[in-house]
Amino acid sequence: MIKVGIFGASGRVGQLIIQEAKAHRNIEIGAVFVRKELDFSLPEGSFVTNDFNAFIQCCDVIIDFSSKEATNALLQALESSSSPVPCVIGTTGLDEQDFALIDSCSKRVPMLYASNMSLGIAVLRQVVEQVAAKLTQADIEISEIHHRYKKDAPSGTALSLAESCAKGRNRPLKEILVTDRISQGARKDGELSIISLRGGDVAGRHCVGFYLDGEYLELTHNATNRLTFAKGALACAIWLANKPPKLYEIDEVFA
Amino acid sequence: MIKVGIFGASGRVGQLIIQEAKAHRNIEIGAVFVRKELDFSLPEGSFVTNDFNAFIQCCDVIIDFSSKEATNALLQALESSSSPVPCVIGTTGLDEQDFALIDSCSKRVPMLYASNMSLGIAVLRQVVEQVAAKLTQADIEISEIHHRYKKDAPSGTALSLAESCAKGRNRPLKEILVTDRISQGARKDGELSIISLRGGDVAGRHCVGFYLDGEYLELTHNATNRLTFAKGALACAIWLANKPPKLYEIDEVFA
Amino acid sequence: MIKVGIFGASGRVGQLIIQEAKAHRNIEIGAVFVRKELDFSLPEGSFVTNDFNAFIQCCDVIIDFSSKEATNALLQALESSSSPVPCVIGTTGLDEQDFALIDSCSKRVPMLYASNMSLGIAVLRQVVEQVAAKLTQADIEISEIHHRYKKDAPSGTALSLAESCAKGRNRPLKEILVTDRISQGARKDGELSIISLRGGDVAGRHCVGFYLDGEYLELTHNATNRLTFAKGALACAIWLANKPPKLYEIDEVFA
Amino acid sequence: MIKVGIFGASGRVGQLIIQEAKAHRNIEIGAVFVRKELDFSLPEGSFVTNDFNAFIQCCDVIIDFSSKEATNALLQALESSSSPVPCVIGTTGLDEQDFALIDSCSKRVPMLYASNMSLGIAVLRQVVEQVAAKLTQADIEISEIHHRYKKDAPSGTALSLAESCAKGRNRPLKEILVTDRISQGARKDGELSIISLRGGDVAGRHCVGFYLDGEYLELTHNATNRLTFAKGALACAIWLANKPPKLYEIDEVFA
Repeated sequence: MIKVGIFGASGRVGQLIIQEAKAHRNIEIGAVFVRKELDFSLPEGSFVTNDFNAFIQCCDVIIDFSSKEATNALLQALESSSSPVPCVIGTTGLDEQDFALIDSCSKRVPMLYASNMSLGIAVLRQVVEQVAAKLTQADIEISEIHHRYKKDAPSGTALSLAESCAKGRNRPLKEILVTDRISQGARKDGELSIISLRGGDVAGRHCVGFYLDGEYLELTHNATNRLTFAKGALACAIWLANKPPKLYEIDEVFA
Repeated sequence: MIKVGIFGASGRVGQLIIQEAKAHRNIEIGAVFVRKELDFSLPEGSFVTNDFNAFIQCCDVIIDFSSKEATNALLQALESSSSPVPCVIGTTGLDEQDFALIDSCSKRVPMLYASNMSLGIAVLRQVVEQVAAKLTQADIEISEIHHRYKKDAPSGTALSLAESCAKGRNRPLKEILVTDRISQGARKDGELSIISLRGGDVAGRHCVGFYLDGEYLELTHNATNRLTFAKGALACAIWLANKPPKLYEIDEVFA
Repeated sequence: MIKVGIFGASGRVGQLIIQEAKAHRNIEIGAVFVRKELDFSLPEGSFVTNDFNAFIQCCDVIIDFSSKEATNALLQALESSSSPVPCVIGTTGLDEQDFALIDSCSKRVPMLYASNMSLGIAVLRQVVEQVAAKLTQADIEISEIHHRYKKDAPSGTALSLAESCAKGRNRPLKEILVTDRISQGARKDGELSIISLRGGDVAGRHCVGFYLDGEYLELTHNATNRLTFAKGALACAIWLANKPPKLYEIDEVFA
Repeated sequence: MIKVGIFGASGRVGQLIIQEAKAHRNIEIGAVFVRKELDFSLPEGSFVTNDFNAFIQCCDVIIDFSSKEATNALLQALESSSSPVPCVIGTTGLDEQDFALIDSCSKRVPMLYASNMSLGIAVLRQVVEQVAAKLTQADIEISEIHHRYKKDAPSGTALSLAESCAKGRNRPLKEILVTDRISQGARKDGELSIISLRGGDVAGRHCVGFYLDGEYLELTHNATNRLTFAKGALACAIWLANKPPKLYEIDEVFA
């Protein structure tokens, strides 16, 4: 049994992680870090705390889905701890200083950062990088659709898929990315465009298309519900718990 | 047997129409109008001419896929003819004066104008109008993909599908149309967006999505080759040949 | 406010209906019928009963997702009640005797039976009937995918879509239905096949394809979660509440 | 310039190969082998023959899309030739004796056999093998659609994709393959099913789905026209021309 520490337990993903962790046969919840009082129930005997050192001591590995500020505080606590533990970070909106702290922690314990914890997306990123490299003549276009309330476009995941394609082509993404086809005239050679649709309660669908003369490949990922992201975070935590110190990428989890 | 007159026989669609007309059991090619010499073969006995009156006299119905200028000349010839014949027009880029001529001709013979002659698209337009009217809560989004050489975006067909949706909602399209989702923040109520992809040699795919809470419909049309447009023009010609004088819409062909 | 009576409240769909009804601004839960003690919470003041007459008296309309036996008992109670109320029935596996009871009740109150309460599927059934009638040359094929635990194949919904297509073609479904293409040789004229996939936790996707020379239409419905069916049942209940006595079909709800 | 010999020039794929070869900047048609008189035109100066030795001597590499009998004769000619040349074979329906001949020829010259010459399918086969290996919990289902005249089901390409999935799972395909879901009850663990649709003039679409809890991947290949297979054969020929003697697989072309 691996003891997981949930950091950001009151957030939407945090709660899904607790729900999944309860049901997982190889995981127990070592500790839950909360600032405010809990308004949900935890397995009997769960340790709830707002003390960083107590929290760190009760876990084999931490999963963090919180806010930039909270993640920064956690990273400082890990940095100054005499017995830091591995940490999976899914919080978005971090800045360079935060990434420097992650890097610094990774000298002493394994660390992993990812903007999308879904196994399927991780595998898709590997695949599209390969396909982009192999089908050198293909025009690449990415489309994504999310629920009507999503504020940003394109999605971070679509951008990360575009990054993988650009890597497969040995091109910097910013040189080839187009996010608007209207009134642009015909497609330019080597361009890669991302387009975004919004509607209903779609959890998230991403499609990477490789268009050739006479044939095309469309590689599509569908999230059927948001538990996917919680499951992915737990899979990362299990994988990370016993690795040597290093800053890992999610692709290595499924190498 | 219906005698079809092919106007614009040297153009890409014109040639496909000839190819299809040759193979069609209810159609014979009455006459072919050409300005220049032909560089392709016609069925034995075909009447080739560059004389408007001779051309009109040899046909039961005319199909025109030419240029704005040629269409205008044809319409003037029909207007002044003592025995005009029905005419299916698929030429794009016409102006108000041309449409006035079409209208005028339609007092004496049946006329039909359409920017897309595919049966499937005509049926899809009817369907999306109904669905837009019935699923009043649905977010509507349209996506289309065409080959890498297509110059305009969105496609005229995507716009006509959007028109049908807007009609089903009793809203002017221009009030609800969005053609760029990037950096727009969350979806606004009632919006309809069209997004365009370009790549490979895709003949044309259009998808109209209706996104609700808990479910969505996606209605997709695929052109598998460009002969589709020639077949559609012939179907329109057969339908139009014996109708009373009027300016018809393509939806009536499949009502 | 319409007072809805939930019959079959302990079942999976029943619980989703309660969840949706709580959140609906035009609905209040008039009464909940349960045989056994409840192991979930209801809005304060909800009337919980196992007495048929008391249950019927507290509702404007009943929604039933229970079992064949329970539905039969409910129908008998409605039949003998001096003040029966409208009833939406979604229970499957009913026999002729049950349908005769539904029919009989519909002489005094409006009744509605449907194997799928999703608005989207109801609209799709109307659409495919029309398209099947209009695209007379199209080859029709239906595919569906559901989660790995679904026991029956093809799905009842796929069969009802096939029925709508057959109706559009004026053919009895049984004469044209094929459920296995392997080792059958080439497609026979007029055939309609349904194929079924199973995997993961897919809530349900149905695709009706119309394949022509040069083009095809694929009309797809996706359920993003099972709440869809609860929402549909409530929409039916609101619609049915004030109708005159008759046995209605779900298509009439969205006519 | 590589001199390609076209064997089976009168066949449908043979003619497409000639058409593509004419337009290819790195290829010239060294010789065309025909039994009967040609009823189509070749580039000026093309060498047309029905003599095996003369044919072999004029080519750097041969492409064969003919019949079992013709392929056998070609292989015997290569076997007994004092100066055999590399050969790409796309003819289907070969038997063990033919494959033994291919194997024998490959001791002296590079040989390549493939049932599908499309680059996209070759890449997809590599990808699905990897994904099957990485997503060990995923339910795999394959669907394909082809035009209404296709006689066999499932397609050979679908079977080869299934083989790649089975390889990724280290399971013999025959142990896990299911080709009919109707009346089978729920999905069994580890099963892989292939389902086939037929309609219209669809050139060929294959979809390999990996279904997990909470997410799924669908990897789809579309042939937009049959030239694809001709292009693929030429790409294989160019690749093979200068390789050392061996029996190669198409996956190596795009390794």
